[in-house]
Amino acid sequence: MATAAPPLKDELDIVIPTIRNLDFLEMWRPFFQPYHLIIVQDGDPSKKINVPEGFDYELYNRNDINRILGPKASCISFKDSACRCFGYMVSKKKYIFTIDDDCFVAKDPKGNQINALEQHIKNLLTPSTPLFFNTLYDPFREGSDFVRGYPFSLREGVTTAISHGLWLNIPDYDAPTQLVKPLERNNKYVDAVLTIPKGTLFPMCGMNLAFDRELIGPAMYFGLMGDGQPIGRYDDMWAGWCTKVICDHLNLGVKTGLPYIWHSKASNPFVNLKKEYNGIFWQEEAIPFFQNSTLSKESITVQKCYVELSKQVREKLGKVDPYFVKLADAMETWIEAWDELNPTK
Amino acid sequence: MATAAPPLKDELDIVIPTIRNLDFLEMWRPFFQPYHLIIVQDGDPSKKINVPEGFDYELYNRNDINRILGPKASCISFKDSACRCFGYMVSKKKYIFTIDDDCFVAKDPKGNQINALEQHIKNLLTPSTPLFFNTLYDPFREGSDFVRGYPFSLREGVTTAISHGLWLNIPDYDAPTQLVKPLERNNKYVDAVLTIPKGTLFPMCGMNLAFDRELIGPAMYFGLMGDGQPIGRYDDMWAGWCTKVICDHLNLGVKTGLPYIWHSKASNPFVNLKKEYNGIFWQEEAIPFFQNSTLSKESITVQKCYVELSKQVREKLGKVDPYFVKLADAMETWIEAWDELNPTK
Repeated sequence: MATAAPPLKDELDIVIPTIRNLDFLEMWRPFFQPYHLIIVQDGDPSKKINVPEGFDYELYNRNDINRILGPKASCISFKDSACRCFGYMVSKKKYIFTIDDDCFVAKDPKGNQINALEQHIKNLLTPSTPLFFNTLYDPFREGSDFVRGYPFSLREGVTTAISHGLWLNIPDYDAPTQLVKPLERNNKYVDAVLTIPKGTLFPMCGMNLAFDRELIGPAMYFGLMGDGQPIGRYDDMWAGWCTKVICDHLNLGVKTGLPYIWHSKASNPFVNLKKEYNGIFWQEEAIPFFQNSTLSKESITVQKCYVELSKQVREKLGKVDPYFVKLADAMETWIEAWDELNPTK
Repeated sequence: MATAAPPLKDELDIVIPTIRNLDFLEMWRPFFQPYHLIIVQDGDPSKKINVPEGFDYELYNRNDINRILGPKASCISFKDSACRCFGYMVSKKKYIFTIDDDCFVAKDPKGNQINALEQHIKNLLTPSTPLFFNTLYDPFREGSDFVRGYPFSLREGVTTAISHGLWLNIPDYDAPTQLVKPLERNNKYVDAVLTIPKGTLFPMCGMNLAFDRELIGPAMYFGLMGDGQPIGRYDDMWAGWCTKVICDHLNLGVKTGLPYIWHSKASNPFVNLKKEYNGIFWQEEAIPFFQNSTLSKESITVQKCYVELSKQVREKLGKVDPYFVKLADAMETWIEAWDELNPTK
């Protein structure tokens, strides 16, 4: 599995929210050790995370976030893994891979350990095909191509901005589905990568996700969740809706499918229901809002797109609940903080 | 593999264009024998097709088509497998499965023979999800469900009208790709069924295809191909573009993925290039045309949708080539013939 030179070694950061389980890093050691880690601690800053020897990492707790961002730290969630997006902001690399600490190395049907990071990199470095569906899935994978009837003018594809990986064992279900199907496991290894078509939204899960920070980073904001907020477990969904609308506008691609990780344990469905409760209602309004959202021609950068979207959120979703007004403000604060930490050269 | 009562036995016809290879029926015997076959002979009517004992079938040659349709027979292609759509028209069943005679029974990764028809029936009898993408693919397959963030209001799905199956061994490539990659084979068994999202077109291949004739049959016209026409190998593509636009308008679903068949041999790429030549240019105009086509609220039946689409084809694609004017006329003739043979009760 080891390669002489790991791909994108100096161009990719791995961002991890609080690591509760140190087996996590041991298991991923052969794959992660060559890379730089950014760990964002989501809870009590006085608790110490003991990172095992040999990893190159930086760790941020709430005190660090407050110190670095000052009043703008209000846009970063507290006591929620949504705080991970602070790591996207402080990274100086082109690519980000983010993974939860209950996600372990999965095996393919032949029993080989899956190098998830390597597959994400393949996904990101090959084009996407959002403008027409290819029935043999990603035409840029080895042994595949565009099928008969695929327009030749579209075969260059578009640059890929996001690679969304999946999960074996515990599927990413909402609390109601967890409650109804406590024993369901995902054992189906689907050997495919595909582009989510233009104009189609999807539920983006943050457990196993990679993206091109330069292309889409400023839109990868995980919102206001957790402590003091009326909602949780919608951080990645929010980022998924926003980034997809912006990728469609900027002609960037989003892939989903491989790689799989092994999701080791289900979170508590009762706790989850409490966190999700409002989101279950609100998504019924938010999704049609994003499906119908269009951005102006003047929005030619991710930042401009995101600020335009924040205004639409304030105006349209603000009517659904005052939370969205607060969120729209936080979206703008996030962009200000992003630009402060990432000045254009 | 044998089941006591084959699913939909009295509600499904298998439509096959000319059978050149009698091994084809022998290989499929355990799966096809319980069903009624409609064979549409594409070439010389004097050539006799010897259907092996034990199959329940009806066979139509060009003389039969001319006799049954009279002057309207002009809408049915001659010397081209596109003539198969005549079988859709004369069927009296709710469902159609159509397959080419060079498609054999494939094996799954465990080495079991795949009952393609059974999987198509599963696809057709479970809903589709065109309005939002489900990252774990078809949520109606056993062991799967909607993932976190999938709106609950959309979980009923919509009725499935079309099931598009894939091919192991020889992939369905166009002539240029065949010429460039003569040795490429599809060995990847992707264990997935998924809905093509609303608003997204796809290249529909007629090799291994099933559909609900009552819901979408009148739009499953395979156009004017072959003898006397400037184009071939776009019959299924044409039907795919038209049916997808109409399914989107009528809120019907289209699935692709499983089942696989074993595509035994590649057709001659030089012959194919000759047939495809015009289509390669024309699809660059036709696909944007279909992507932008919208149907009026008054078009509430497939027939009305199809006639409206034929007028748009005449007006917009007629400028690309006079062939499309002829095709638009044939589309209307097809609907007249369909309604004649399928009077509303």
